Amino acid sequence: MKLYNYFRSSASFRVRIALALKGLEYEYLPVHLVKGEHKADAFARVSPSKLVPVLETDGGELLGQSMAIIEYIDETHPQPPLLPGEAVERAHVRALAQLIACEIHPLNNLRVLKYLVRDLKVDEEAKNTWYRHWVREGLEAFERELARLPASKFSFGDAPTLADCCLVPQIFNGQRFDVNFDGLPRTMAAFDACMALPAFQKAQPSSCPDFEA
Amino acid sequence: MKLYNYFRSSASFRVRIALALKGLEYEYLPVHLVKGEHKADAFARVSPSKLVPVLETDGGELLGQSMAIIEYIDETHPQPPLLPGEAVERAHVRALAQLIACEIHPLNNLRVLKYLVRDLKVDEEAKNTWYRHWVREGLEAFERELARLPASKFSFGDAPTLADCCLVPQIFNGQRFDVNFDGLPRTMAAFDACMALPAFQKAQPSSCPDFEA
Repeated sequence: MKLYNYFRSSASFRVRIALALKGLEYEYLPVHLVKGEHKADAFARVSPSKLVPVLETDGGELLGQSMAIIEYIDETHPQPPLLPGEAVERAHVRALAQLIACEIHPLNNLRVLKYLVRDLKVDEEAKNTWYRHWVREGLEAFERELARLPASKFSFGDAPTLADCCLVPQIFNGQRFDVNFDGLPRTMAAFDACMALPAFQKAQPSSCPDFEA
Repeated sequence: MKLYNYFRSSASFRVRIALALKGLEYEYLPVHLVKGEHKADAFARVSPSKLVPVLETDGGELLGQSMAIIEYIDETHPQPPLLPGEAVERAHVRALAQLIACEIHPLNNLRVLKYLVRDLKVDEEAKNTWYRHWVREGLEAFERELARLPASKFSFGDAPTLADCCLVPQIFNGQRFDVNFDGLPRTMAAFDACMALPAFQKAQPSSCPDFEA
């Protein structure tokens, strides 16, 4: 397998975690988002929507969208599972993942921040306030959702799931923008439990071949 | 089953489509987003993250996030399937759905538009330009993704899938803001194929008990 990705992309990071949790090897193909390599003509063959990550299967299929890729990895390499066995539990895990992937992260994408600055003439401080607002508001919602679920070591249950694949990159992302993580005990305990595992260490941005400090 | 939802909410509309395609009956519980009913204390029990839709199962489980709910419905009521049988095909359908649910719709949520106006002091015209920008850009990406897939009546294949559950509400949403849909032949053909089906007609905003013109 090949993974087109960028060390700092949260969505790429999600897939790297899933691959590491499954113990799968892959070829790392960097796409430099800040340099705009995802918009180059050469990349349109890989991703018509000009996004990373893209997983290229051994059969040559090109699969986009991080959560779709992770579900594919989980279906084709079931052990260890990234979703629980019961339909209701699976729904809870997917909802936690989507709370991050659909409610927080899309607002803080590079292209959105660029639009704020370039088109709406938002200054640096207001841009950072926007960023922190959506991360903080979203993580507070995540914490409240966790509080309703049974006590657990990770976001859901005692092993990492799709929800943790989304949570950890979001926390890394928030750390870069000095988001306040106070008052999020279950969320941050799940993050810490993840980061104690070699798979999450191996997948983190600073472990990537294209990492830049 | 009970569905907490709002006639104009795109995410609610996605779930209504899935329920209608499965032929499932449910109790419709309106939550008026514009009046802020989702933020009321009484609703916190239903949705700690203060979002619609929420599906309450017959067992009393409260499930949030539209795509997680649809996967739950598909797992517990498999016919007709909303995802294809092969893992690669499932990945394509989920990616199309997520291209809308993670790349387009989050930027045009009510709370985001409110932030633009209230906090960033964006005027009406710039707000509408923002809205149309993300819908148009996202649907162009959707069209390019479709162009790479085999010819099909719906977004993927010859029956509606999770991708169509996301596409149709996004088009309705864009119509309200006068988005230009020119040059999106496969996308709009899939939309038209969906709207020719009774399930999509039944699920649309104007068919909802809480509809307001």
